[in-house]
Amino acid sequence: MNKQNSEDVMPTNSVVQALLTDLYQVTMAYAYWKSGKMEDRAVFDLFFRKNPFKGEFAIFAGLSECLKFLSNFRFSDSDIDYLKEILPHVDPQFWEYLSGLDASQVTMSAIPEGYVVFPKVPLIRLEGPLPVIQLLETTLLNLVNYASLVATNAARFRITAGESVQLLEFGLRRAQGPDGGLSASKYCYIGGFDGTSNVLAGKLFGIPVRGTHAHAFVNSFSSLDEIKGNKLVLNPSAKSKKDPQLGFVELTKSYLNKVSPILNVLENETNEGELTAFLSYAFAFPASCLCLLDTYSVIKSGLPNFLAVALALNDYGYRVIGVRLDSGDLAYLSRKCREGFNLIADKFDLPWIKQLIIVASNDINEDTLRSLKEQACFGSLENHEINSFGIGTHLVTCQKQPALGCVFKLVEVNGEPRMKLSEDVEKINLPGKKNVFRLYSEDGLAILDLIQLCTEKPPVVGKKILVRHPFNESKRAYVCPHKVELLYKDYWGDNCLMQSFSSLQETKQIASDSLKTLRQDIKRELNPTPYKVSVTNEMYHFLHDLWLKHAPIGELS
Amino acid sequence: MNKQNSEDVMPTNSVVQALLTDLYQVTMAYAYWKSGKMEDRAVFDLFFRKNPFKGEFAIFAGLSECLKFLSNFRFSDSDIDYLKEILPHVDPQFWEYLSGLDASQVTMSAIPEGYVVFPKVPLIRLEGPLPVIQLLETTLLNLVNYASLVATNAARFRITAGESVQLLEFGLRRAQGPDGGLSASKYCYIGGFDGTSNVLAGKLFGIPVRGTHAHAFVNSFSSLDEIKGNKLVLNPSAKSKKDPQLGFVELTKSYLNKVSPILNVLENETNEGELTAFLSYAFAFPASCLCLLDTYSVIKSGLPNFLAVALALNDYGYRVIGVRLDSGDLAYLSRKCREGFNLIADKFDLPWIKQLIIVASNDINEDTLRSLKEQACFGSLENHEINSFGIGTHLVTCQKQPALGCVFKLVEVNGEPRMKLSEDVEKINLPGKKNVFRLYSEDGLAILDLIQLCTEKPPVVGKKILVRHPFNESKRAYVCPHKVELLYKDYWGDNCLMQSFSSLQETKQIASDSLKTLRQDIKRELNPTPYKVSVTNEMYHFLHDLWLKHAPIGELS
Repeated sequence: MNKQNSEDVMPTNSVVQALLTDLYQVTMAYAYWKSGKMEDRAVFDLFFRKNPFKGEFAIFAGLSECLKFLSNFRFSDSDIDYLKEILPHVDPQFWEYLSGLDASQVTMSAIPEGYVVFPKVPLIRLEGPLPVIQLLETTLLNLVNYASLVATNAARFRITAGESVQLLEFGLRRAQGPDGGLSASKYCYIGGFDGTSNVLAGKLFGIPVRGTHAHAFVNSFSSLDEIKGNKLVLNPSAKSKKDPQLGFVELTKSYLNKVSPILNVLENETNEGELTAFLSYAFAFPASCLCLLDTYSVIKSGLPNFLAVALALNDYGYRVIGVRLDSGDLAYLSRKCREGFNLIADKFDLPWIKQLIIVASNDINEDTLRSLKEQACFGSLENHEINSFGIGTHLVTCQKQPALGCVFKLVEVNGEPRMKLSEDVEKINLPGKKNVFRLYSEDGLAILDLIQLCTEKPPVVGKKILVRHPFNESKRAYVCPHKVELLYKDYWGDNCLMQSFSSLQETKQIASDSLKTLRQDIKRELNPTPYKVSVTNEMYHFLHDLWLKHAPIGELS
Repeated sequence: MNKQNSEDVMPTNSVVQALLTDLYQVTMAYAYWKSGKMEDRAVFDLFFRKNPFKGEFAIFAGLSECLKFLSNFRFSDSDIDYLKEILPHVDPQFWEYLSGLDASQVTMSAIPEGYVVFPKVPLIRLEGPLPVIQLLETTLLNLVNYASLVATNAARFRITAGESVQLLEFGLRRAQGPDGGLSASKYCYIGGFDGTSNVLAGKLFGIPVRGTHAHAFVNSFSSLDEIKGNKLVLNPSAKSKKDPQLGFVELTKSYLNKVSPILNVLENETNEGELTAFLSYAFAFPASCLCLLDTYSVIKSGLPNFLAVALALNDYGYRVIGVRLDSGDLAYLSRKCREGFNLIADKFDLPWIKQLIIVASNDINEDTLRSLKEQACFGSLENHEINSFGIGTHLVTCQKQPALGCVFKLVEVNGEPRMKLSEDVEKINLPGKKNVFRLYSEDGLAILDLIQLCTEKPPVVGKKILVRHPFNESKRAYVCPHKVELLYKDYWGDNCLMQSFSSLQETKQIASDSLKTLRQDIKRELNPTPYKVSVTNEMYHFLHDLWLKHAPIGELS
């Protein structure tokens, strides 16, 4: 085990504590205690039943926060005092028991964070004293559900957008609460985003942070008179030195006079406040200037103002970065911007201006991205010229499906298997302590996940085995795996972490690599092929025997 | 000003800090600083443009957390170090300026938390140095957006369910992150819920906490042999003392023999593990026993097992509370439960059993509630018998619309009005520093919200005034208010809180009272009538003159 810095094992959010749970976990713990089941050895599985977003995969995330929670699991004195207050008739000895509890008797195995995962496959397997594991349920579900949901959402956005565009998460203001925002930044990065606008996420997790200015910045300026005394110095690291002759503001104004007719814009219609704002931003960030164009009118004001500033900056030895569009028809406006860039680049013999970045950021969802990509793919006249997307609301709130339904089910007590029956076959859980293997074909693609009892022998490379659908008796197949991977690692046992935490960068890489093992038809957006989750023949019979044993027969009348 | 305990003014969540913001707020602050606009006096409005959930109202929430954020707004040394790292070319003097910033120069007026609010009406009005207010934007939006969204969602659930049923929030495990859960508990309580399952919410906010046991609890027991040595004592505070003759377990078994034929159930089909679980729960909570019936089969096992325990507990002087249903056809199963209660109540002459509580808790949303209520209203055979709903996923993640689109717009700089133009009329903001008055009719109902410039005289009770639609010139009306309420209170100024925080209970009452001032047709679920948000004639002309002044005319070619 690698040593962990003690600060590293505190949950990111201080509200993640033993009491962040449902009351029934505490009342159950008391009833277990009262029934003398404190030392009953239980196995619980954490899994989901249905892939989110009408897709056929999910990304597993939230594990490291679960481990931090386990490391710190303990009821404080004030917690106990509060519980005494709301449960006044409880035997006082129980409070002594509860205040002594921690996760030292718990072992936890899990699939590594970042892996692609599928319904019915336990993501986390916990074993330990029944009341303790029960008390962990709600918090673990909370930490896994949203993390996995939003990481999956980000991965889907990435798949839809393609690898060549930049994706930035801009969702903090619309997220469901402060750490809805913070978690979104973290897990979207894991799922395939390139950066975030969220500064705290940058500080805490080392995620690249991006941002320039807002409409309010543009609105706050009204006239060039507001520029007082700012002087731009020539870029000391510029390759070719020029002498711009004019001050930066005068130079920009003279370029505006040249740019406007080229872009077919009435010069006196460009907004002076906007020009002042762009100039002010350029004074502050001459080497990384990116301007928001749509405060008044992209075509009639924003674009000419920006290009005038770009040309003036160029004379001072700086290259602008690009523009951002935040309203209107993004594809159309991006084409108009690119046209403007090309015209000016040719006219002033500055070919790099053609390559300026165009960021789009208005209410973008998966469907917008798909529609824009399809336009681009088919090379239509309606092509877009966007290089980078800033995505907020739909990404972080997972508008298409704002919750992942992870559940936490008891599967074994003292070595005896347990299952919850249900009218709905899909809701029945797989009993017993299980292992899961991912079987790969020769080309490195995942064939299926195989669930079997821990007492069974693992599948063997090159050896044919029978795999079965867990509930449909006629669905069977032989598989001869080229590679067999046990999906679980031991993460917690003997009261300590058994793996060092992956860095965020590593987890991002794991997610990216894991997605590559998935066939394209499983990842596609429309009517994806389901990935197979199978059981061994032994697991099949074990499950069905137990099911029949517990399901009441009833009598028709 | 009431004194505040310093602990009370810390944000609930430790991640709520100055750095929980978008990077562009910092880059803009630098550009403002560099342009000498540090002391420019700005007014910003925080408002939303569209009611959530296809409704015609929202509940304003999150204000007290905003005030706690303001009270603590400051960049720490480590924040500054991090910012230096990601913005290496910034003038070092700016970091001195930034590290000295706080909210002492800011004033904040707002509508009281819990009020019903409407689109375009500024919920919060902030005034102060331009860069400081700008730096507050993202965090304030984050704190208001989800709080108001989920409070509104809760209020809608309450309106749909009616006043007579109990509504409990059970959403922690599915919420968007740890404080998605914690905030949901708090703001659903404000919006009209009666309690939560979330223990930490109970501890931190004093919300009533509810919960009994889960399926796993039932599953964990398999045989009556597991009950070892537990003895139930007669309820010392029971009015009529009996001598039950038999031990609690034996007594329950004998009642099961009597109950099963009455309920038309095969006695040997009731699940013994389930009976053991109910007994164990009764041992632990004899005075507050509520059992989950659907682990195996509500009708064939859960109900008879529960009623046997209920009758045995009765002999020991305790009354059970009721049952919970968590799967299947909730209306049908609730009727079957009530039928069983009635049969047993009559047979054993225990009329109180007819009144037992039935809690339902499976994936309930607003539509489920409406459908159940309609059945009940029309007295159909399909009526339900549910007294209490435990609602999770759909409530806390606001599935119907997971984000509220609050925005934060600059409306004035140094006394000069500002507005952001847009192709879309709905996106234009109302410029200038404004007040909002709510005008009431004689019956105490709200007629409309009137937005006017701060320089205008307030409307006067009994005096007719002309009010106008802000954008549609032909929509005008005269109004003679019976009562005039200035919606804003001053909450922050001179570096301190100007109002004491309302307790959660008070805010809940404010929300309830405020909803009562709203006409029924505005609150109804289907095709509600829009509430009027109007401007004075002076505001109308002010807005339109400024608009024409700034909108480019363009030239058709």
